[in-house]
Amino acid sequence: MPEDRPPARPPHGQTSPPAWWERRILRAVLAGMGSPPVTVVLWNGEELRAGSGEPVGRVRLRERSVLRDFVRSPEVAFGDAYCDGRLEVEGDLAGFLIRTFRPGRHGAAWLRALNRVLGGRPHPHGARRSRDNVHHHYDLGNEFYAMWLDERMVYTCAYFPTPEATLEEAQLAKLDLVCRKLALRPGERVVEAGCGWGSLALHMAEHYGVRVRAFNVSSEQIRHAREQARERGLEKQVEFVEDDYRSITGTWDAFVSVGMLEHVGRAHYRALGQLIDRSLGPDGRGLLHFIGHTRPTPTSPWLERRIFPGAYMPSLREALAVLEPRALAVADVENLRRHYALTLRHWLGRFERAADRVEAMYDARFVRMWRLYLASSLVSFESGSTQLWQVLFTRSADTAHPWTRAHL
Amino acid sequence: MPEDRPPARPPHGQTSPPAWWERRILRAVLAGMGSPPVTVVLWNGEELRAGSGEPVGRVRLRERSVLRDFVRSPEVAFGDAYCDGRLEVEGDLAGFLIRTFRPGRHGAAWLRALNRVLGGRPHPHGARRSRDNVHHHYDLGNEFYAMWLDERMVYTCAYFPTPEATLEEAQLAKLDLVCRKLALRPGERVVEAGCGWGSLALHMAEHYGVRVRAFNVSSEQIRHAREQARERGLEKQVEFVEDDYRSITGTWDAFVSVGMLEHVGRAHYRALGQLIDRSLGPDGRGLLHFIGHTRPTPTSPWLERRIFPGAYMPSLREALAVLEPRALAVADVENLRRHYALTLRHWLGRFERAADRVEAMYDARFVRMWRLYLASSLVSFESGSTQLWQVLFTRSADTAHPWTRAHL
Repeated sequence: MPEDRPPARPPHGQTSPPAWWERRILRAVLAGMGSPPVTVVLWNGEELRAGSGEPVGRVRLRERSVLRDFVRSPEVAFGDAYCDGRLEVEGDLAGFLIRTFRPGRHGAAWLRALNRVLGGRPHPHGARRSRDNVHHHYDLGNEFYAMWLDERMVYTCAYFPTPEATLEEAQLAKLDLVCRKLALRPGERVVEAGCGWGSLALHMAEHYGVRVRAFNVSSEQIRHAREQARERGLEKQVEFVEDDYRSITGTWDAFVSVGMLEHVGRAHYRALGQLIDRSLGPDGRGLLHFIGHTRPTPTSPWLERRIFPGAYMPSLREALAVLEPRALAVADVENLRRHYALTLRHWLGRFERAADRVEAMYDARFVRMWRLYLASSLVSFESGSTQLWQVLFTRSADTAHPWTRAHL
Repeated sequence: MPEDRPPARPPHGQTSPPAWWERRILRAVLAGMGSPPVTVVLWNGEELRAGSGEPVGRVRLRERSVLRDFVRSPEVAFGDAYCDGRLEVEGDLAGFLIRTFRPGRHGAAWLRALNRVLGGRPHPHGARRSRDNVHHHYDLGNEFYAMWLDERMVYTCAYFPTPEATLEEAQLAKLDLVCRKLALRPGERVVEAGCGWGSLALHMAEHYGVRVRAFNVSSEQIRHAREQARERGLEKQVEFVEDDYRSITGTWDAFVSVGMLEHVGRAHYRALGQLIDRSLGPDGRGLLHFIGHTRPTPTSPWLERRIFPGAYMPSLREALAVLEPRALAVADVENLRRHYALTLRHWLGRFERAADRVEAMYDARFVRMWRLYLASSLVSFESGSTQLWQVLFTRSADTAHPWTRAHL
């Protein structure tokens, strides 16, 4: 991983030592983080040691305003100051976060403290708001995502048959794993809710001979997906619909949603279950692939405010609120947490290699924001703070699905 | 399947036709069952047709007292009258139940009606009460169970690599599946909660080189398990403890419980989770294997009162109340519902072949009770009314467990 870049906004000429109350704030902030053993370099060059034992990282506060922000808006102060360049982490950011975040040591307390601050506010997820939330992130431009995603533009957890597989191989393996779990048969009809750039829909049609209708509210993604369908001669088999998943109608053999549940909002799980129930025929089955937590956990405030407005990653138990009221039977659950950590390592590596081009396209702040987002996501999967579940389900009395997992 | 046997208690000499109010009760009972198309033969030989369409079965009411019981205690009237021989089902009992129970047709309404009657009463599950509940069922005598279980005496859902496998092969495959899911390594230490006749503990020790401490409150089962350990020279590797799972102490590499959660009681799920959490080391993992429902469902009153006092089969969501508060991460879930239906077909077939010997050992009423229990269980798995889940879990940040399912 490269060194952190210099900040976009040069620090003010602040050379005076910290006042007693500034020292007190800093100690309180560090204590709130569980006192990780770090060295803090202040704006005047002074070095402070926190925690006990060998320091696991160095943090530079370029401006005293960072301390003020930790009082005013503690839940986003670290992230915002990092993005602005007022706070720097020396060396490898992900490595630093891993060392300070480690659950069971000091990291968990930090996370809990951060989470307590925010609490579980309800998020608006009407169809229009969902569209706004999605545009914020997914319409940044296909060119940007093409710089660091795999060639198929898959922006969800990959499946690495072995840890040595390439990202391209692992994303292809994931698409195929989903198809095999669904036991797709030629001629069947599949509906996809939240199709990204269309890679799964196209793969299902091309390799499993099914017809697919795929929904997505991101116009940038739908445009790319339709181009792909034309190029690969799959226009008659795959229909990409620029619309909300709530507009799904008709009866289908399979329902699939990869990486959308995080944007649905808990209040809509029951309605999603109703939609799935009425969309599936008697031998219908479905797969939900989503990021979750081992127990209910508010979204990290910085992530929710700056990266994914309205996102919520449910516990498995919360997610089952989609299926349980409709008596849909969980057939198979797999946890791909470590696969997501590895996926994020690939993404972060590719992103860093493209950082100069990203900065030219946007600016240095944007680069730091995405670096922090990818690095902290990597850390949250590696540390077990987040999990990744694929949940396959059938009708409760299904007899059509394969007898064992031998087909996987 | 053999014909139903004549009742133990011969019917009273009741030959007078039903009164108007008896007809009304009968119609109400049938309507409450969803009006299945059956022929009801009354004590006086009169035949009544219920539902519409071709009759799918014939029920004989040998005594008019059955109707009175349907008013007094509707939730157990069918089962009790069947066991007493006052109500007979002509021909294959399981087939009759499947045809009348089919969910989505008329059966579901019957089931719901029955369940509504009982509601969700809390069941006492203190250590002493658990012991009483278990003695009621599991201490009937090893000789009885040996008449119709497989050679290893496994009284839980088998795993059929193909539907043609024998019960012996399928139970062996199940034991091995559990061990492989747990990824047991030689020298590791495993604790088992509710070990039945010891087959899993012995298999783990013999084939995976682990040390096992296995708990069970049934003295009959523990006696048999200890004998087996002696015979197979595994006394030093496997310790069978005649005690409640709540007496588990120490730290273990794996926690396993096959077919016990149904007897734990919802009120104790959180405490079970605490026990598991404190029993597992940092790379610890566990497996819960249990009968459940797609959504919360009161135990069938007849089953609860006559067969399994205190039993409750949770929804998957309810069962996760064990793991979620301790932040244990679900790694893998598999639904073996159809395997349990097939297991029960084998058990019922073997039971029928042993019915004469069972009757000589107990009485005809006992035979009818067990026939109804096995047949109705078979039907509830076949119809999707009950499910069978194996839930594998690890620490939330586990890195020791295999990377993929290739080891399965």
